[in-house]
Amino acid sequence: MKTRLSLLALASILCGSLSAAEDNPPADDWKPAPSNQVGKQYPQVNSEGRVKFRIVAPKAQIVGVSFRDSSPFTKDADGAWTGYTRPLDEGFHYYTINIDGADVPDPNSHYFYGAGRWGSAVEVPAKDADFYALKNVPHGQLREIQYWAKSSNTNRHAFVYTPPDYDKDTTKRYPVLYLQHGAGEDETGWGRQGYAGLIMDNLIAEGKAKPFVIAMEFGGNPFAGGQRRTNAAPADAGATNAAAGPGGRGGFGSGFNFSAFEKVLIDDFLPYVDANFRTIADQSHRAMAGLSMGGMQTRMITLAHPDTFSHIGVFSGGSIAVTNITDMAMFKKKVKLVFVSYGSRELGGDRPARGGDPKANTEALKAAGINAQFYVSPDTAHEWLSWRRSLHEFAPLVFRN
Amino acid sequence: MKTRLSLLALASILCGSLSAAEDNPPADDWKPAPSNQVGKQYPQVNSEGRVKFRIVAPKAQIVGVSFRDSSPFTKDADGAWTGYTRPLDEGFHYYTINIDGADVPDPNSHYFYGAGRWGSAVEVPAKDADFYALKNVPHGQLREIQYWAKSSNTNRHAFVYTPPDYDKDTTKRYPVLYLQHGAGEDETGWGRQGYAGLIMDNLIAEGKAKPFVIAMEFGGNPFAGGQRRTNAAPADAGATNAAAGPGGRGGFGSGFNFSAFEKVLIDDFLPYVDANFRTIADQSHRAMAGLSMGGMQTRMITLAHPDTFSHIGVFSGGSIAVTNITDMAMFKKKVKLVFVSYGSRELGGDRPARGGDPKANTEALKAAGINAQFYVSPDTAHEWLSWRRSLHEFAPLVFRN
Repeated sequence: MKTRLSLLALASILCGSLSAAEDNPPADDWKPAPSNQVGKQYPQVNSEGRVKFRIVAPKAQIVGVSFRDSSPFTKDADGAWTGYTRPLDEGFHYYTINIDGADVPDPNSHYFYGAGRWGSAVEVPAKDADFYALKNVPHGQLREIQYWAKSSNTNRHAFVYTPPDYDKDTTKRYPVLYLQHGAGEDETGWGRQGYAGLIMDNLIAEGKAKPFVIAMEFGGNPFAGGQRRTNAAPADAGATNAAAGPGGRGGFGSGFNFSAFEKVLIDDFLPYVDANFRTIADQSHRAMAGLSMGGMQTRMITLAHPDTFSHIGVFSGGSIAVTNITDMAMFKKKVKLVFVSYGSRELGGDRPARGGDPKANTEALKAAGINAQFYVSPDTAHEWLSWRRSLHEFAPLVFRN
Repeated sequence: MKTRLSLLALASILCGSLSAAEDNPPADDWKPAPSNQVGKQYPQVNSEGRVKFRIVAPKAQIVGVSFRDSSPFTKDADGAWTGYTRPLDEGFHYYTINIDGADVPDPNSHYFYGAGRWGSAVEVPAKDADFYALKNVPHGQLREIQYWAKSSNTNRHAFVYTPPDYDKDTTKRYPVLYLQHGAGEDETGWGRQGYAGLIMDNLIAEGKAKPFVIAMEFGGNPFAGGQRRTNAAPADAGATNAAAGPGGRGGFGSGFNFSAFEKVLIDDFLPYVDANFRTIADQSHRAMAGLSMGGMQTRMITLAHPDTFSHIGVFSGGSIAVTNITDMAMFKKKVKLVFVSYGSRELGGDRPARGGDPKANTEALKAAGINAQFYVSPDTAHEWLSWRRSLHEFAPLVFRN
């Protein structure tokens, strides 16, 4: 009887664990992720938003991925390890493969600058991905530029998006949006994983946004010391050569003190852009926006320079309260738009948003007579799908008046 | 006596192996490679051209690198493995780290497209690196473009370098060089590891080259099947989105048959560049050059289109023999330059150069009255330092007449 009970108990445990696994087998509709390198079949994404990885590592003891709550990785007869994540939100996620204790990029993915390094990321296709899809519409250009910044005495590296017709009529001038990345990211972010160019190309083709120039600089890495990203003198520049990859030049590690970036932006980059692109170089045709740290910079810099910027976008980076505005009459006259956004999963919970409730702050601005807008990206967290959508909502609202 | 002899023999063996190692310890003047990610101290290069790697992999059994004749990697108390290469030629070398059988990118390096994948490469600084160094001179722009190719019914992705003053005087028009990458590489190569922009910026600043536009397309991957790099219809383009990383769009895997590329280049790309950039759209202001497979394409396409191109550059990709030219009188009249180059380590040995001895072929062209030039890059093989130097030699010779 005892043996029988034990066997039953054992069977129950076995069946239990068996059914625990089989109750929720991942949906078997895996497709290669859009963020894969050309020709790579992995990572794959299924309809639940799970991501499956495949890493050939025949002699490894243990392989894993940096997403929490992932399945264990198992090795097949060919030495290939596979494992998959929990269902992830739609959108863009940085990750690292771990092989016997080594954190390395996935050899199958494209590489992006984020989390302070060039490394892997995976795109879980969004239902609304059409707004940043590559279509047969007129395209703008993403221009990689190098310029000499007097305030920092360094070469600096930036990107400028010019809209589709920019080179057609060389008498036409355009407004400019200064658009900033987040902490641990750099000037490549908006043009690459942010799809800023394709978002604008599609909006312009649909007649939903006016064409404007977008200027993207490096806003610093608050997690790095002063040594990092600080360029050598030009004579040594072979070692920090532009083409060796974006992200190594003319930066500053400055914590969350943005004064060095403010100086470069206002004293160097802005005059460079006005001198080298056909901009309408006045306050009413100049916007600034940014995500996360870039939103904090936008808030700080636009409030300090009301004569420079007329349109303000803060994406997942706080909000502007009525009490932040020292001269409301002047602000009402000069500022044509305050746009604040978050991913829905960033709101609520027990971590209050930086600088107070962003919706309430925005409503209060509206009540004070400011053109203020609040947007929430559905079912996304602190990641690029929230920010692509934020740009997509923000762009049609700027330079309308 | 026997014991004593054995001990001596053992001592001799021990000392022998000891001195074998100590006779040639690597020079202890390691410096971080210029191809490292920002803030990364490894890989390091010493004055012998050896490259030392450091990979944290505490649980790994064996770690190595794809360079042949490298030292064994050894693990320190922190779980970091280090090892170094034989002395390498100056210049740019693709590589892979191997961790317990897994070939992965080095998490410390920048990533480049070559050898058919985005992955690691290391730069062994060249003595003449100054010609492609980032300097405080006026800089051109590297423009990422998307355009619709009717001949392939796909979106295509390319880069166009515009010289420093391109946007200053919008009435001025420029000659164009079509510049192609090698097999396993793509349209990102010349702008990134090729330093084409900085080479031109420096030459123009020194008054050594006339400013011209450089147009860089994807010439196909001969090692890939037709499936790879072939774009989906535009409606599906979310999955092959431009910003997800260059290199996934509008290609063709076509072996060493270049007819599909020829068609895109002549029927789509060239008219697009002439319509969208301020080019001088005639034969005498149009050059084509390429490296390796791109040199083979240049040779084939320029010989087939003498009314289209006037200046020809073939870098490590064969040469043009007098017998290749069917109408010498016409060729002499139309072709203003034939430039052929190789890395010195590619010449001699028992592998004859494709299409005959390149120096003899070039001398024969000269004797036939053609402006033909032969250049050999000192102490380099089939790699990017040979090709950077080739562009640096070629650029001052084009569009002079």
